[in-house]
Amino acid sequence: MPTFTYDAVVRWSDMDAYGHLNNARFLTLYEEARVALFFIGARDHGLEGSFEEGIIISRHEIDYLRPVDYGDPVRIEMWIEEMKAASFTVAYQMFDEGVLASRARSVCVPFNLEAGFPRRLSQAERDFLEPYLRTG
Amino acid sequence: MPTFTYDAVVRWSDMDAYGHLNNARFLTLYEEARVALFFIGARDHGLEGSFEEGIIISRHEIDYLRPVDYGDPVRIEMWIEEMKAASFTVAYQMFDEGVLASRARSVCVPFNLEAGFPRRLSQAERDFLEPYLRTG
Amino acid sequence: MPTFTYDAVVRWSDMDAYGHLNNARFLTLYEEARVALFFIGARDHGLEGSFEEGIIISRHEIDYLRPVDYGDPVRIEMWIEEMKAASFTVAYQMFDEGVLASRARSVCVPFNLEAGFPRRLSQAERDFLEPYLRTG
Amino acid sequence: MPTFTYDAVVRWSDMDAYGHLNNARFLTLYEEARVALFFIGARDHGLEGSFEEGIIISRHEIDYLRPVDYGDPVRIEMWIEEMKAASFTVAYQMFDEGVLASRARSVCVPFNLEAGFPRRLSQAERDFLEPYLRTG
Repeated sequence: MPTFTYDAVVRWSDMDAYGHLNNARFLTLYEEARVALFFIGARDHGLEGSFEEGIIISRHEIDYLRPVDYGDPVRIEMWIEEMKAASFTVAYQMFDEGVLASRARSVCVPFNLEAGFPRRLSQAERDFLEPYLRTG
Repeated sequence: MPTFTYDAVVRWSDMDAYGHLNNARFLTLYEEARVALFFIGARDHGLEGSFEEGIIISRHEIDYLRPVDYGDPVRIEMWIEEMKAASFTVAYQMFDEGVLASRARSVCVPFNLEAGFPRRLSQAERDFLEPYLRTG
Repeated sequence: MPTFTYDAVVRWSDMDAYGHLNNARFLTLYEEARVALFFIGARDHGLEGSFEEGIIISRHEIDYLRPVDYGDPVRIEMWIEEMKAASFTVAYQMFDEGVLASRARSVCVPFNLEAGFPRRLSQAERDFLEPYLRTG
Repeated sequence: MPTFTYDAVVRWSDMDAYGHLNNARFLTLYEEARVALFFIGARDHGLEGSFEEGIIISRHEIDYLRPVDYGDPVRIEMWIEEMKAASFTVAYQMFDEGVLASRARSVCVPFNLEAGFPRRLSQAERDFLEPYLRTG
């Protein structure tokens, strides 16, 4: 199955007063994984002008399955769940010591930041995302 | 309509490299509003042992409608969308200068932290949440 | 004594695993106060091009006197401690429920971001800072 | 020279609106390095009850020498600068791509959290810190 894997460092300061990884920080760690993937796209596929500055997030969904504590990095596995003309969905799973701790989804919208409105995915962007696409 | 309103300060450091409120920080601001509501419950309804430490979040959904910038506080309006035996859903809307900028939902699960498993909402918790319940 | 006062909201998520305001977040709250002061300068003294983007921090010093907990906003009092040709020092005190909890200092250097090197304080900047200057 | 080295990941979300590592986040990265060192002490020298929960920071000093951007981890080198009966000072240097970007110091005070007052360094703590001590 096509997957992009990212090991995210959990900081001591990511813990909240309960001693667990704060809820909002899950989103920060998913963001790190997503940015890492987009940087590869930018660097290896010449997508700098599009991925780096021309994509906005329109929706996040996160399921919390078990608390995560300070310690070893968590493993994030990512893939593309849906690719439409003017949006695509990134799906993630976060594993803490090999156990699934959280799942998430980000709906991403290619955007023309200068013109200020959504745009279609370019062919180069589709070519970059395609290998990570999981259907069914 | 029953609503709990919270004005959340946006910090300069909440901005990301794009100069907008970072996506994950929306969740932090929603959290501030939710914690403020729960503190009122703890203080005014004797729910300290339950709300303050005995509720976990099992799911978040956030829709981003427009970017939010540094400046005046954003207004968060909150209510209870669904109340079941062993979970309830908090719904939020965030307004930036009077304009709807984001919507979110948190599925909350009462939890017995000592015993380590979910529990039912107590009658005192239901009494506290009821006035914020919107149905239909 | 000339003082700029800023009430900083302490977020629940600013607490660390010990249940106290995290050490690094003190710096974030001091930053909020400083940015608020500079924004007034920018807005009321036409210093937008200088204060907003043309000042860098070269040094911070922070003394922690007592732990700060989640609850009411902390009060930050600020003044200018030293004003030299090409730098000035902002001094702060943070009060939690009226009790001094921390002290800090930031050495600020006017900077020409485009040219990439330090510059002298302009007369307009000096005029803005002067009322906050405490000597001796 | 005795040194503890820690490679700290810089997150995309650590960038501020200027596109550089936010000032307060330097302190967060230094904290990660310090916590990592203390965890080694806790694990390898049986100092769990002392280092992990029984040390407070009484002062931080940070010098910012050059801006740090998102990208590769920064390298933090740490050592003990001074060891007194009831406090010790951790010194740090942060390198970005091999170039010194920042220097810092933390004054640490062993603390009896239950009793609520400072205490002396234990012999086990001194034995752990000694190899990292630089004098002169």
